[in-house]
Amino acid sequence: MISSLDNPKVKLLLKLNMAKYRKLEQLFLVEGEHLVKEARQANALIEAFSLEEKAGYTQLDAKILKKICHTETVIPEIGLCKYFAKNEIHEKILILDGIQDPGNLGTIMRSACAFGFKTLFIGEGTVDIYNAKVIRSSQGAIFKLDFLFGNICEFINNLSEYKIYGTDVANGIPLAEVAKEKKIAIILGNEGNGISASVKALDLPNIYIPMENTESLNVAIAGSIIMYQLK
Amino acid sequence: MISSLDNPKVKLLLKLNMAKYRKLEQLFLVEGEHLVKEARQANALIEAFSLEEKAGYTQLDAKILKKICHTETVIPEIGLCKYFAKNEIHEKILILDGIQDPGNLGTIMRSACAFGFKTLFIGEGTVDIYNAKVIRSSQGAIFKLDFLFGNICEFINNLSEYKIYGTDVANGIPLAEVAKEKKIAIILGNEGNGISASVKALDLPNIYIPMENTESLNVAIAGSIIMYQLK
Repeated sequence: MISSLDNPKVKLLLKLNMAKYRKLEQLFLVEGEHLVKEARQANALIEAFSLEEKAGYTQLDAKILKKICHTETVIPEIGLCKYFAKNEIHEKILILDGIQDPGNLGTIMRSACAFGFKTLFIGEGTVDIYNAKVIRSSQGAIFKLDFLFGNICEFINNLSEYKIYGTDVANGIPLAEVAKEKKIAIILGNEGNGISASVKALDLPNIYIPMENTESLNVAIAGSIIMYQLK
Repeated sequence: MISSLDNPKVKLLLKLNMAKYRKLEQLFLVEGEHLVKEARQANALIEAFSLEEKAGYTQLDAKILKKICHTETVIPEIGLCKYFAKNEIHEKILILDGIQDPGNLGTIMRSACAFGFKTLFIGEGTVDIYNAKVIRSSQGAIFKLDFLFGNICEFINNLSEYKIYGTDVANGIPLAEVAKEKKIAIILGNEGNGISASVKALDLPNIYIPMENTESLNVAIAGSIIMYQLK
């Protein structure tokens, strides 16, 4: 059993709380039995760690597990995973333009998976998809999606054949009037500021969800309603 | 300026982090300029506190504000509010059966407000609606809704004239086949366990949202899609 914070493996696991080191090492962590299982199925799991002595697991001290997961209660099982390189462009694409809240991004992944939006394009300014809270909120959906990264305007310029929509809290086409398309891409903007100026400048048609008595919906909610409607 | 943690007002504000004291005092806190404004408009504001010297505000030390809000950065404005007693039964009702995550409850409130589900019935086992994180996620929607509290089965038994639906991740009527009704009540269950056994025993029709490749949606997402469809 590893019980020292100076153990090189523990040092690595601790470093992976920071996006910088995840990117450098091309590694990330998942927490909990369910996610370790999903990671294994996706061939992303490198090593599994457990509080208990268990075949196929490296045993870790409760204190170390708490420190790695930043939790008050012990998560009894974690997994060290490698970045997975699934980057196919499917027929339904979700483009994320500066989503900042990890919980929102994870929830969006979960809905994207449920409604068949299998490719997520992660624009600059969006939170790291390998953030522990993103993965937790995604409930494993992260392992079932394809991801592309980069500049949204460049990506869109190469996306012929697709019907592409922006989203706006007030201006545009009411969701109920938007036709389903075989190939479709939806852009979701930042929680506070919406779609970025450079993407707005592309002058794409916008979808909006009619609301009463409220200024806006949570971005994960809005995106999920749109995906449900246009799936 | 108040700068002592021993100040009786500060002691009261600190205590309101706990549901027990909120209930006892029938008071709660809101954080941030936007929510203080919404609380004032709703006639729920008793006293406003600010980091800056400002007319109509009691000035508080940065250290005290941080301690009250449990934040690393200072929220420059908070409001002390009284429980508000709006409890009208509107035509569209959302019944919450054990929602535990404060972020989920707040997000549900925001969507309920947007889609005209103006009455929320808070069943036993649901997180306190006056929890700071609920209010933050609600983005002020809490001040625009009516709330009832108690036993769900008793409430439903007195709810004649309403079409009442449960929700289930897999069994029931697909959402697209559910007719809109003038008077409708939707029950949302717990994040992990769904609708409670006693409510299930009422044998109400269930709505489900068809999904692929995923076991379930986040409850705030599922509830919002249903409200959008049936509004």
